[in-house]
Parts: sequence; C-alpha cells; structure tokens
Amino acid sequence: MEELAMKKIYEVVDEKRIFTDKTDLYAYGFDASIHHAMPDVVIKPESSNEVEKIVKIANEFGIPVVARGAGTALCGQAVPIFGGIILDMTGMNSIKEIHIEDLYCIVEPGVVYAKLNEAIAKYGFFFPPSPGSGDVCTIGGMISANASGMRAIKYGATRDYVLGLEIVFPHGKVRFGSKTLKNSAGYQIERLMVGSEGTLGIITEATLRISPLPKKRAVALASFDSVVKAGEGVAKIIGKGMIPSALEIMDSVCIQAVNKAMGIGLPDAEALLLIEVDGKPSEVRDSIEKITKILENEASKIEFTDDEEEMTNLWKGRKGVLPSLSRYGDDKVSVSLADDMCVPISKIPHAIKKFQEIAKKYGIIVGTYGHAGDGNLHTKVLINPTDEESWKRAEKAVDEIYKAVHNLGGIASGEHGIGITKAPWINGDVETMEKVKKALDPKNIMNPGKMEQWKEGIIAFLRYK
Amino acid sequence: MEELAMKKIYEVVDEKRIFTDKTDLYAYGFDASIHHAMPDVVIKPESSNEVEKIVKIANEFGIPVVARGAGTALCGQAVPIFGGIILDMTGMNSIKEIHIEDLYCIVEPGVVYAKLNEAIAKYGFFFPPSPGSGDVCTIGGMISANASGMRAIKYGATRDYVLGLEIVFPHGKVRFGSKTLKNSAGYQIERLMVGSEGTLGIITEATLRISPLPKKRAVALASFDSVVKAGEGVAKIIGKGMIPSALEIMDSVCIQAVNKAMGIGLPDAEALLLIEVDGKPSEVRDSIEKITKILENEASKIEFTDDEEEMTNLWKGRKGVLPSLSRYGDDKVSVSLADDMCVPISKIPHAIKKFQEIAKKYGIIVGTYGHAGDGNLHTKVLINPTDEESWKRAEKAVDEIYKAVHNLGGIASGEHGIGITKAPWINGDVETMEKVKKALDPKNIMNPGKMEQWKEGIIAFLRYK
Repeated sequence: MEELAMKKIYEVVDEKRIFTDKTDLYAYGFDASIHHAMPDVVIKPESSNEVEKIVKIANEFGIPVVARGAGTALCGQAVPIFGGIILDMTGMNSIKEIHIEDLYCIVEPGVVYAKLNEAIAKYGFFFPPSPGSGDVCTIGGMISANASGMRAIKYGATRDYVLGLEIVFPHGKVRFGSKTLKNSAGYQIERLMVGSEGTLGIITEATLRISPLPKKRAVALASFDSVVKAGEGVAKIIGKGMIPSALEIMDSVCIQAVNKAMGIGLPDAEALLLIEVDGKPSEVRDSIEKITKILENEASKIEFTDDEEEMTNLWKGRKGVLPSLSRYGDDKVSVSLADDMCVPISKIPHAIKKFQEIAKKYGIIVGTYGHAGDGNLHTKVLINPTDEESWKRAEKAVDEIYKAVHNLGGIASGEHGIGITKAPWINGDVETMEKVKKALDPKNIMNPGKMEQWKEGIIAFLRYK
Repeated sequence: MEELAMKKIYEVVDEKRIFTDKTDLYAYGFDASIHHAMPDVVIKPESSNEVEKIVKIANEFGIPVVARGAGTALCGQAVPIFGGIILDMTGMNSIKEIHIEDLYCIVEPGVVYAKLNEAIAKYGFFFPPSPGSGDVCTIGGMISANASGMRAIKYGATRDYVLGLEIVFPHGKVRFGSKTLKNSAGYQIERLMVGSEGTLGIITEATLRISPLPKKRAVALASFDSVVKAGEGVAKIIGKGMIPSALEIMDSVCIQAVNKAMGIGLPDAEALLLIEVDGKPSEVRDSIEKITKILENEASKIEFTDDEEEMTNLWKGRKGVLPSLSRYGDDKVSVSLADDMCVPISKIPHAIKKFQEIAKKYGIIVGTYGHAGDGNLHTKVLINPTDEESWKRAEKAVDEIYKAVHNLGGIASGEHGIGITKAPWINGDVETMEKVKKALDPKNIMNPGKMEQWKEGIIAFLRYK
C-alpha cells in the first residue's frame, strides 16, 4: 500500500484502531474457510462517517477494502485475495433503535446475531433467520451472505427481513429502503446488497423487520430405514400444507459421527428427521398430530417432545454434526468444499443418494445433513488435509456433486455464499453481475478478486489454501 | 420510429400481433393513472425469444420499450413518455409449472393474479400478495411494482415471493434466482428487478414461492370515535405480538362515501378497523379472543364474524372505498395523486390527522383508508377535474402530504410505485439507481423518462395529464 494512503488513513482514524503487526495481519487473513491471504492493514472503524472517509481514500488510491464481521464465512468471502484494507466491523455493534409496535429495529453491522435476539426477546420478539454460527456471527455478515439457517422454511432468509440499509459505496454514503414493512418507492438496492458478499459496498447500518416469538415449540425425532423414505416424508409434509418451523435431515454418516463423538445415542437409522413445530399451544398440538399421521408409512419410528431439556439435547446432536464429522476418521478432517447446496425440496433423496455414489466412486467420505424443509443440504467431505492426492480427489468429487445439484434443478449455495470456494458453480449470469459491480465500484476496490473468480469459474481450492 | 426498425420488427413478429392503428395507440397510451402519452407501436409478444429479438432491435435503434400487463398502474408506470414500443405482455399468460411439494410455480408475466390463485387453490395453496386489482392485474406488473395489498402484514409483499426470474436486458436474455426457497449463490438481481418499474429489463418468466392456504378466516369490524384511538389500537395489537392476516382502516370520509354510494350501512364512526385473522380453526378462535380483549379500551364497538356472507359484505365495503369516493361530491372525482404512502405502523394516527389538516387548509377533500397493519395508507384527493385551480391546490396539498409522510419516517409508496406521479418523493439515492440503470440499459431504452423524472424531482401532474 502506498505510504501516502496510509498517512491519510492515520489522519482520519485513531491509530489505536489501526493494526499493521504481522501477527494481526496473519490472523485477519483467515475466515472459517480453507483460504488465506494477508491484508496490508486492519482497521476497526467506529462510525459510518469513518467508513466513508476510509473508502474515499481507498477509492482514490485503488486500495482493496474487505469488510469483515465475525469471520465465520465458510467460503473465503472475508479473505482479502489482493490484500489492502480489512475493515473489522465488530466495533460498530450498537443496537440503535427497537420499535416493537412498528416491527423493526435499527442496528449497526457489527451487532452479534444472538445479542440482537437477546435484546428483543424481552418484548416477546425475535429476528428469525437463525444461522448455525448465530452465537458469534454479525448482522452485517448475515446480510452479505443472505444467511438463514434452519427456520427459513417457515420464516424466510435474511433477505426477507432487510427493510433498509445505509451503505458506503465508493461514490459516497447513501440510504436505501425504509422503516416501513412495505416499499415500492424506488429501486430495492437494499435487497441487491443482500448476498453480494462485500463486492459492492460497505453496510454501515441496517433496519430489520422483527417477528413475534412463538409461544410454544415442540420437536419430533423420526427414524427412517432409507434416505429416500426420509426425503419422501419431507415432501409429503410440505405437500399437505404443513410448514414446520424447522425440518432437518441427517444421513447415516452424520448419525454415526455424532454418536461416536458426542455419545448422544441417536437412533441407529439410515436417516433421521428432526421436525420442529411452533406457534400457539393449540396449533402446536394440532401440527404434531398431523405430522405423525403423515409420516406413519414412511418413518420406522417417530417421537415428539416438548420437554425443554430433551429438545435441547436433540438440537445439540444436530448442531454437533459439523464438529463430530472431523472426529469420524482418525486421519481425516471435514472441510467445507461443497458445503451448502440447495435443491427443490422433493429432490433431497435424489441428491443424497447421488452424493453417496460420488463419495464411493472417489473413495472419500461425504456426510450429508441440513435443512431438508427448504432443500438446503450440507455436505462435508472428509479428507486427510496433509495429502495432496486427497485434496485432488475431493476436488473432482465436489465438481461432480455440484453438477448433480444443478441437474436436479438446484444451486450451489443456499445460505453460505459463493466466496472463493464455490466460484465455478455460481448461479445467475455473471456478465450482468459484473455490469452492476462496475457501475457501483468502477475501480474494483470492494472485495476484489471474488468477481474475477466467479467469472473465471475455476476451482480454487489449492490456489488459496 | 425509423422505418428500418419497423421493417425488422415485422421480420421477427407476426403482423397480427403488431398494432399501429391510431385508436389502438391512443388506448395503449393510458394506464390507470392521470397520464397519457402515445406509443409508436404496440406489440403483443408470445415468447421470451420474441421479446429478446424485439429488445435487440430496439436497442440497436435506440427505441423506447415499455412493458405493460393489465395497465392497472396508478402512477403512470406503463405510460410511454417518449413513445416507442409498448410490449403488451398479456399474451404470455401460461402457468408453466406448479410444484406444490417444492413450494413454487413458474409462470409467464402475463398470467393474471386471480388465475394463478385459481390454479393452485385446488391443491390448498395460494400466492399471498393480494393487490386490490387482483382480478385483472398480471404477475409481471406485480413484480415491477412490488405489489402487495392487504395481507402483507402477515405474508409480505411480492418481493418476498420472487425466487427466480428470466429477464431480457438490452445485453440479452438471462436467468437469476432459483427453484429453491433459499439462495446465496450470487447477486440477487431478481430482487433488484422487483419494484424497478420496467426501467431495467423485461421480465419474461417468474418462479414464485407459494404458501398453504389457511384453513379458516374470521373478520372483525371495530368502530372508534377517533382516528387516534383506531391507530393506537393497531399499534397495541402488533405490540402484543398479534399479526392479523389483514388490518384495514377507513376514516370518516371513506365511511360516509361507502354508505352513500353502496348503502352497505357501515357504522357511523370516526374510524373503522377491519381485522382479519386466519390459520387453523383453534388459532383463529384464540386470535379473536385476544384481539377483542386488546381493543376493549380503544374501540367503541367490536364484532367478529366467520360467516362467509357477512365477511364478503364487509370486504365489499372496504373494496368499494375507491369507486365510492368518486361519487362523494357531485362535481368531484377521486384522483390518484398521493395514493399509497407508507409510514411506521405507530405513526398512522399522526399521518391521518395531518392529512385532514392539510385537506382543510387547501379546501379540498381527502379520504384516507388502507392497510393500517403495515402502515400503508391510501389517500384520495377529491377534485373537480375540469378546474385548473382545483388541480393546482391539489398539487400543493399533495406536496405537503408527502412532506408530512417523510417527517413521520415514512415513504411515498408502499405498493403502487413511483411512476410519473410520485417522482419528487422517491425514496433512496437516485444517483445510485441511475448508475445501476446505466449499467444495465446504457442506451436508456427501458421505460425511459421515468428515471429522468425521479432525478428532476418535479411534480408532473399537469405535464402528462
């Protein structure tokens, strides 16, 4: 980075919030993906005005700017491919306004998801998208990835809750959207920003819709003697007009991994469904009865519980899949390569079967679990990370996995984003995306390198490892 | 229009679907707004390939292209300010696929809203956004305006249901989005298109999320002796975590107009709330009890019904407001000038009171009604259309009305769009919008004139009347 640019940055930001030590830069070169690249400087801004000043300098000198929340991105979104400035947004973490009767709140992008829900739970409200990393991830990161999690089937994804944004583009700080539930008063740039992975501008404030917390929840655990039967069960539940608040699937690899690592004692089935229903108590009872009846031919066993402790235990099992998979084989770890494809709901069994075939073909282990209710699956490839051959086989398997997903009418990412890892399998027309990016970021300073990856469409596992 | 361009169009479209008669052109110069402008030619395309060919020719010759559904837009969106081609999309009206278990359907843009709901109702499903013009309006128009209607408080607006689009941009036909409920696999250009009023590209196919129909509905009519009390009632319902499926308000002008024109016999109150709840029968019962209790101090009277005939009658009264207002004063008609502002929910009484003050100041009549549950109000200004002075006073009143809306944290349009009529009060940064438009439509052929109006921000009532 040019010295003059650094000098200008020190003029607008307190030096206590500017980091240039090698150790800091190294640490900030990672997110939760397999990639790494060193930034030139890390800045922790404290206001949108400061972000605006930094972006202005960056744009003047053509310096890359990569905004970063908690760094939980699994595909390299927060890895600064071309160096430059990392904006650590976690310092901008104020919940500025809560308007329960108006169904919205205004937050800074560094607010942690769980903290926001803590703040509004006392009024009986919540911000429904519920990413697995919710205890640490930030609202800004959630918007940039269009994060969602297991309740999207009923409540939608982050995109459905962004009412308004303050954004710093290279051309300045602007506002889009509103404090109202509806908006037909101009381009929905706020919704374009959702899922744009920091490649267009920096989000400095968000106005979010909130929803009333359900009065009651109950969870069922259903066992199946084949993945196909579990998938058919999912399609039958939806087809009958039942929309559970969560509908999760685990295949046998995942069940065994959890039982081995956590000793939770999940049933030894070929597939499990975890089904959560919520609402008014009478509604929950009604839904339980209906779903039990719907699954009577598919499931080998189904048990509901509304006991808080039992429910917590079941969700612990579900949430333990990811870490457990890393302890499944002795010399193997689970890596996020093909991590969150999404297929039409009824295509889930076809997808899981196909993944198992591909795993067998390449002699690797693939565990599949995820949000069956909305077709969003997670697969983890278990490889020996020190073995180049193992990476190469995974690379081939992953390519086949995504091709299978596309053949089934699906897409490469339901909630994690494209980043670096999934570049070859991006959805939509990249030429059009590039036109929009060039219009808003003509000097390509906003998270540069990602659009280039998407355009090139080559597998970058080994390049940025 | 250049002769060579017309010649090329005749080469790619059957002449039976090309209209150049003066009478046709005159008729297609209107939508449901106060504006009018003559197109040079009207084309009724029958496929997305045809649209692509037409747009290519238009782009080559720099000819304006304005897509049009049923022409129910209230603000001039479908009026071809600079002439050129009107694409009448109503011929592309096929419901291509319905996938109940996958919660989506694929339709052409000319499909009428009510026809889509008819087609999926037999499976127990519906497409929830419910515009007042639903019996005739098209899906393409709904997407272009981000239409919604009275059920948005619970079910959201069109933007929340657009999973994927096929779009013809000047640079070609592309696809964005997916057949899946979630999507984090690239820019959400499909959501940017929602509400862009035909100024970016032509929608030639839409993949829409669908929802299970509620099993039961019930409606309450609550009378209030002041608008303020009605507004407070709305905020209390929401604040207690109750989300009705509709929550409509009418002020005394509207009540009297409906009673005079339709003889429905609505209670002679200062304000009425029509409250609809839906869901499982047990849930509906529960909601009725809770809402009745919540309103016991605010409402002078509240009565629920789940009798189909009574409910139909009540909705007839609500839907009759717009035509009834035109028969309120002998020499006056209601015009859509300030027609669908949106304010934060709790600001509704402040807004209505302010509108009444402004009406008094300018000696005009303003009736206010609308979707109180989501803060989306409708006002109709009653004027003598043959009296220039009357228009001028209305123009001033409307400007004050929108300024009041902005002061209350609101926006100029919740569901109808900006078009020509509301240009001065557009929401969001027009400079940013223009950058995006220029990137996707560099020769400014897509519904040109609108962005210019938004940028100029001048009141155009009299210019395009």
